[in-house]
Amino acid sequence: MEFSSKLLENAVYEMSQLPGIGKRTALRLVLHLLKQPEERTQNLSNALLKLKQDVNYCKNCNNISDTEICEICANPKRDKSLVCVVEDVRDVMAIENTSQYQGLYHVLGGKISPMEGVGPQDLNIASLVKRVESGDVKELIFALSSTMEGDTTNFYIYKQLERFNVVTSTIARGISVGDELEYADEVTLGRSILNRVPFENSIKAG
Amino acid sequence: MEFSSKLLENAVYEMSQLPGIGKRTALRLVLHLLKQPEERTQNLSNALLKLKQDVNYCKNCNNISDTEICEICANPKRDKSLVCVVEDVRDVMAIENTSQYQGLYHVLGGKISPMEGVGPQDLNIASLVKRVESGDVKELIFALSSTMEGDTTNFYIYKQLERFNVVTSTIARGISVGDELEYADEVTLGRSILNRVPFENSIKAG
Ligand SMILES: [Zn+2]
Ligand SMILES: [Zn+2]
Repeated sequence: MEFSSKLLENAVYEMSQLPGIGKRTALRLVLHLLKQPEERTQNLSNALLKLKQDVNYCKNCNNISDTEICEICANPKRDKSLVCVVEDVRDVMAIENTSQYQGLYHVLGGKISPMEGVGPQDLNIASLVKRVESGDVKELIFALSSTMEGDTTNFYIYKQLERFNVVTSTIARGISVGDELEYADEVTLGRSILNRVPFENSIKAG
Repeated sequence: MEFSSKLLENAVYEMSQLPGIGKRTALRLVLHLLKQPEERTQNLSNALLKLKQDVNYCKNCNNISDTEICEICANPKRDKSLVCVVEDVRDVMAIENTSQYQGLYHVLGGKISPMEGVGPQDLNIASLVKRVESGDVKELIFALSSTMEGDTTNFYIYKQLERFNVVTSTIARGISVGDELEYADEVTLGRSILNRVPFENSIKAG
């Protein structure tokens, strides 16, 4: 791409550093901002910088929170003996959205990935071990993505916690509720057969 | 979407104001920036603000340019009697990329669109009329998108210039070079038959 202006080229370059934003999309976004009042660019810049500079992670679960302890951890009605281990904030939001879960979370901040240079020390694993060590946690639910990295991370944490008396489980994988079998991918379909549940349970769940 | 932090919610809101960026994508982009060094967010903010504050439009053609007159207009080798009328900078880049065009441009900055509240006075049409009036321009090529707004804009400009002795043309629309007929949409296919060119011309062009 040949730009008629260095200022434009630079803005497009920075925008295209965002994941999934190619040069063409970046150009479209930058030209859109150019057409809007300057306030819009100011607001975007300020919101991003303010988040980056003032972001706080819950001292207990590492979820993003404006308070030292997040609302979920601070809620006396939540079951503190149950901790769901997730990759990032989006997973917390997705699970909260179901209104089916009353335990707490632990946000790892990623998955172990040798390919991307992410080791156990880069994730919030030590703080999870401490939480379990403190004795409050009775059960851990692994809810990482079912990829090799996710499985590796689950297993690493599982080994770290072997010496403690804590139940570990992973969330059930299967065909989405309401989905036709024929449209499910084969890995999911295979897992859903392996992980079949007693019919009585499925009646209760329904 | 329920956010665990106002700072996060605000950043996602501002990001999702960009066209084609939904809440989920915005959240993904914001969380990505959070994981990167602060420098990345600084660079993005600075590049966008600097462009917005210091952007300059060529005094002649309204293309984005860091100099008062853009490189294309300032190039003595370009044919100043030929002006291609385009919607925005992206079109200039696309046409320049073909290396087939040696004339100048006129960037309108949009199309007439009553639906979006864009009237002729919001576009760089008066400056185009002035350019033609000055007598340098012998031919105008309309290269706006072939939508109702594009056609309306072409026609509006055409009427404004009737009193001048200037040739007007529109770029040829047709099946993309190398495309199979069966995959072309019917409007394009229809136009490409109506706008058929003498076979001799197609040999020269190829
Ligand atoms: Zn928390
Ligand atoms: Zn120019």
